Amino acid sequence: MVVKNVVNMNPGDGVTSYANNSSLQKAVISEALPFVDETLKAMFSGADGFPRRWKMVDLGCSSGPNTLFIISHILDTIEDLCKKRNRTELPEFEVFLNDLPDNDFNNLFKLISGQVIGKNKKRGCFLYGLPRSFYERLFPSNTLHFAYSSCSLHWLSQVPEGLGSSNNENIYMARTSPPKVFEAYAKQYQRDFSSFLSFRGEEMIAGGRMVLTFIGRSVEDPSCKHHSAHYTLLSQTLLDMAAEGLVKMNDLYSFNVPIYMPCEQEVKTVIQNEGSFNLDKLNVFQVRWDAQDNIVDEEDSPVCDKHRSGKLATDCIRAFMEPMLAGHFGNSIVDELFERYTNKVGEHLSKEKSSYFNIVISLRRK
Amino acid sequence: MVVKNVVNMNPGDGVTSYANNSSLQKAVISEALPFVDETLKAMFSGADGFPRRWKMVDLGCSSGPNTLFIISHILDTIEDLCKKRNRTELPEFEVFLNDLPDNDFNNLFKLISGQVIGKNKKRGCFLYGLPRSFYERLFPSNTLHFAYSSCSLHWLSQVPEGLGSSNNENIYMARTSPPKVFEAYAKQYQRDFSSFLSFRGEEMIAGGRMVLTFIGRSVEDPSCKHHSAHYTLLSQTLLDMAAEGLVKMNDLYSFNVPIYMPCEQEVKTVIQNEGSFNLDKLNVFQVRWDAQDNIVDEEDSPVCDKHRSGKLATDCIRAFMEPMLAGHFGNSIVDELFERYTNKVGEHLSKEKSSYFNIVISLRRK
Repeated sequence: MVVKNVVNMNPGDGVTSYANNSSLQKAVISEALPFVDETLKAMFSGADGFPRRWKMVDLGCSSGPNTLFIISHILDTIEDLCKKRNRTELPEFEVFLNDLPDNDFNNLFKLISGQVIGKNKKRGCFLYGLPRSFYERLFPSNTLHFAYSSCSLHWLSQVPEGLGSSNNENIYMARTSPPKVFEAYAKQYQRDFSSFLSFRGEEMIAGGRMVLTFIGRSVEDPSCKHHSAHYTLLSQTLLDMAAEGLVKMNDLYSFNVPIYMPCEQEVKTVIQNEGSFNLDKLNVFQVRWDAQDNIVDEEDSPVCDKHRSGKLATDCIRAFMEPMLAGHFGNSIVDELFERYTNKVGEHLSKEKSSYFNIVISLRRK
Repeated sequence: MVVKNVVNMNPGDGVTSYANNSSLQKAVISEALPFVDETLKAMFSGADGFPRRWKMVDLGCSSGPNTLFIISHILDTIEDLCKKRNRTELPEFEVFLNDLPDNDFNNLFKLISGQVIGKNKKRGCFLYGLPRSFYERLFPSNTLHFAYSSCSLHWLSQVPEGLGSSNNENIYMARTSPPKVFEAYAKQYQRDFSSFLSFRGEEMIAGGRMVLTFIGRSVEDPSCKHHSAHYTLLSQTLLDMAAEGLVKMNDLYSFNVPIYMPCEQEVKTVIQNEGSFNLDKLNVFQVRWDAQDNIVDEEDSPVCDKHRSGKLATDCIRAFMEPMLAGHFGNSIVDELFERYTNKVGEHLSKEKSSYFNIVISLRRK
């Protein structure tokens, strides 16, 4: 497994925090591209591989430029495949951009407005917004050809039920979490991922495919500190602030992130038990916390400029954690929280290189 | 023809100007309902009337509650029709909410989030946003069953080309407009409405239907002052402000609204010439400028409270005219402009009752 850092290829559009700090996601997309290409190639190799209409969805597309990048790539790839097979007529493409209803669709729609998707200016492509949780049904039965999701499926549908304040000052599964917390998280993940597969199974045509990338963990033991060090540092920051009276202790006790980073085996088990899909391929890769940094060699020494690395890593996390933290602890603490967090992350990165462990899977509807 | 005023049934959701001042649109919808019902009844009476999936679009849906109202009504009506025909299984409903990309889709999606559409909580209904001009292709070929549009189709795709400052201080076709202006407006309308029909024709299944409501004019002569008195009052207000140096005369000379209110014959001619649709039915009705006012009798004397009526009528116009006026003349004049306009409209209404002349048509794909 190679640790990759990807130079920021697209600096965002300057509107939302996510749009400005989506380089982690961009790095993940770039890693998943060969997977997407292979899957499309397999899809379009069959006799019935060239349908008149082709319907796809980007699940958890957010509001920045990444979704345009991947959709352009997908449509260009399909067009190339059609050309190679001497198909003169392209399918009519229906592309659905999915995220939760509170996603900034206005920004997304302004971004795509009048944009050419991919290289071919004349290609027909119909783009729609789909404001709904992907843990619900999104499409009529038997209509979807392809689903793509990047950096979204580690989000649970909710904080695991019944946690209360049993996780103490931890905000995710940690070494000091009681067994109940590990059980609640694992159960919520199994339930959510299983629903996800079941709904997509109903919506997809036989032979339909999915390429899904999400953050996982490299070891089976969920209490292993390496996979969730970014949350440990965040809970330590919150604890510091609670000690100074800037955050209420009760607020910290009742805060748990609705995220689950599964290990490979858990992913495989849910897919097998649910039964709608074959797992065609699974791969893993790592992306540095400070994904914008142009460090390409695994053998590098820990980063030198700890402030820069701390800031880059924090910006990536802030992009998706800020709304939740602001909602729970109040807007007023957010700047202070991330300033302190930046320092903690910088310190951490100056001592050890840290990466997100990503899992990418290619699934085929039975 | 009966002049109707409709009591405000739904006071909006307090977010956008349109959402707060959409009572005119609500009144129009209420008038169009019997048309919708008849059209659906005809649609679901044939042998192949009950498809497995049923796809509809609200064209120019805006961001307020009206689109939810009409969609709920449509789905409830179809469910009733299914029950009457002893169909136990409902179609899977796909509903597309269409407007220009700068529409406030965020507000719209928040409004529909978690909402039950219509009476049946269990009914499957998939809602999507469609951010694109309806003067472009919106769907793949041969997939759309029903299109609805209310208070949108009088918008042109652009200000008629080549007007320059030839319309002087007029902002729409007026008695003092030169022939060139009338020609340019009529030509733009014919081109736009024809494209609209042609695109919908490609997208619709044979037998697909449309119910379209838009503001028209009751007389053939486009220079007749009655149908556009609200624009005449607006151009007079702008002229007053220009005389006081609050608005630049050149800005006024270069401003023309991209709206066309066709007469019945023009509508019929474009439908016939374009050729994709049969015109099954056409009706006309009027809605008072001050549509919120609870006056139901045509024989009423002119309104008594001219300030209230002026304000109600102005709020309705402001809801759709403000962005355009602010874009052209600058934000700073808008409050002053509408204050003066309210007085002018109030004066006008104290002397004569004024209504919008609406045309509603039901079309069937050949």
